[in-house]
Amino acid sequence: MEQLEKAWAGRRVLVTGGLGFIGSNLARALVERSADVVLVDSLIPEYGGNLFNVAGIEDRVRVNISDVRDPHSLRHLVQDREVIFNLAGQTSHMDSMADPVTDLEINCVAQLRLLEVCRHHNPGVKIVFASTRQIYGKPDYLPVDEKHLLRPTDVNGINKMAGEWYHILYNNVYGLRSTALRLTNTFGPRMRVKDARQTFLGVWIRAAVEGRAFEVWGGEQLRDFTYVDDCVDALLAAADAKAVDGGIFNLGGDRVISLKDLADLVVAANGSGSYAIKSFPPERKKIDIGDYYATDAKFRQATGWRPRVPLDEALRRSIAFYRENLPHYL
Amino acid sequence: MEQLEKAWAGRRVLVTGGLGFIGSNLARALVERSADVVLVDSLIPEYGGNLFNVAGIEDRVRVNISDVRDPHSLRHLVQDREVIFNLAGQTSHMDSMADPVTDLEINCVAQLRLLEVCRHHNPGVKIVFASTRQIYGKPDYLPVDEKHLLRPTDVNGINKMAGEWYHILYNNVYGLRSTALRLTNTFGPRMRVKDARQTFLGVWIRAAVEGRAFEVWGGEQLRDFTYVDDCVDALLAAADAKAVDGGIFNLGGDRVISLKDLADLVVAANGSGSYAIKSFPPERKKIDIGDYYATDAKFRQATGWRPRVPLDEALRRSIAFYRENLPHYL
Repeated sequence: MEQLEKAWAGRRVLVTGGLGFIGSNLARALVERSADVVLVDSLIPEYGGNLFNVAGIEDRVRVNISDVRDPHSLRHLVQDREVIFNLAGQTSHMDSMADPVTDLEINCVAQLRLLEVCRHHNPGVKIVFASTRQIYGKPDYLPVDEKHLLRPTDVNGINKMAGEWYHILYNNVYGLRSTALRLTNTFGPRMRVKDARQTFLGVWIRAAVEGRAFEVWGGEQLRDFTYVDDCVDALLAAADAKAVDGGIFNLGGDRVISLKDLADLVVAANGSGSYAIKSFPPERKKIDIGDYYATDAKFRQATGWRPRVPLDEALRRSIAFYRENLPHYL
Repeated sequence: MEQLEKAWAGRRVLVTGGLGFIGSNLARALVERSADVVLVDSLIPEYGGNLFNVAGIEDRVRVNISDVRDPHSLRHLVQDREVIFNLAGQTSHMDSMADPVTDLEINCVAQLRLLEVCRHHNPGVKIVFASTRQIYGKPDYLPVDEKHLLRPTDVNGINKMAGEWYHILYNNVYGLRSTALRLTNTFGPRMRVKDARQTFLGVWIRAAVEGRAFEVWGGEQLRDFTYVDDCVDALLAAADAKAVDGGIFNLGGDRVISLKDLADLVVAANGSGSYAIKSFPPERKKIDIGDYYATDAKFRQATGWRPRVPLDEALRRSIAFYRENLPHYL
């Protein structure tokens, strides 16, 4: 492990969505490993970017505010990079239904442009793309493996599916090295908590920290969760392992849990709190997927990665972070 | 059958790509059935639109020259239509690799905009979308059914995959009625023969008619082919059968054949001619898919459709058409 970490020293890395939830946690890990880190972020208020996310490491990263839809800035930023962690995206299911063309521009057009820039100006680059379990839609079987059909149930899922496949195609045809990780519910410090655009868990944790009850929609649905530190480990592993080039991999978590049991864990981790079970809102029901959990055996086997932080500990760490820093996320 | 055909009289129909190969053959079938037909086409020279394709029916259709990327014209044209056959698309694999963003704009952005217009201004409409077997990529098993994974091998395939799923999503969420047909190699009168942008068979047939030898790349690959009249029957059946709403269906053909055997059939249907077997050009090899043929049992079962024109007869009819009309297609 120590040797792997040394390998990042001086390595030229770009993180799109670098001021966002996962991007900024990744940036911290890269800075610890003395990488040469550039973060690109649009800081659009509805998305995950937040300057506070890089508090304490500002002097050790280069922050470039620009939008991945802007082909000009990307061209410059990409040229000398060895690794790109491509995390920028529109993530809200509901926003993608209300404004599908914007979602398409971010999750498809910008992705394709980024890959075109790499193809022409940095063909040796390695790209790790943050895909999503959402593209599977409602599962036929559990746990979901990578051979499961893709049947996205919202515009965001369709666009992310296309975005993922551009990355694989450019690997296969042009010799860029790309890997796609299909992330499941990821949570932890620096996630968005002011609304559910990134994850409902942000809303729950904020309510718990503020001493308010939170709402659990349904409650019986099974899900898996990845703590952000484990997700960062996976991203780093995907960048390093040659065996994953051109590959698509599920990421799962420590365990499978129902939303109701998760709510109980949140209350326990917080030391107090309460929640109310609500029936699923009708406008969400149409795009709900029921139970979902993945097997990430393929990624574990290819890289040796596995989640290290148990779910209850991960919730405690997340709650501790927002207890201290909540005002920066409101 | 007679009853079904009567059902089209006076029905308000829009065909996008209506001056193209399949669109114009469909327009002829609709005119025969006394439908109220509007054809939209951009007449972009690299695509399939050709005014000669509606020779003889000009007075019985309304032709509107505009591009599906133009949201303004579409909004007007879509409003009073009962059925939309959504056939407009960029179809060239190679063009999609050379200019991926244009392919994306036509095959994704314009599709999503069309669906948005329908959702807001014509939510009761029925849409039949021309998808493609190309989105399967290199098959895992044969014949390919609709449960086969999608693994597109070029930008066009990725964008068509997204375009297909927008249609299914809008059916499922907004109550539009959409059906996607995954077309295989379709051929016949009014196809593009000046290059292989639509189908290599156009190039072969043109050469045969002109008395030149044509090139067969590889030759052992198995493929299936749909004669355009059978394809038109399938489109009409898909528009009518309630059972196919929200569904995705393969379309196959009369039989499975190797390219070499097909070349022999072309020569036989032409009465004379020759061809040369060439090895696959390297730049194409990267996106070649090997053998491909589908089962269309699901569509046959849902609609009663089946191909009616045997392959050799279909080739004879196609050759007869170009023997008479070739100058209009050069």
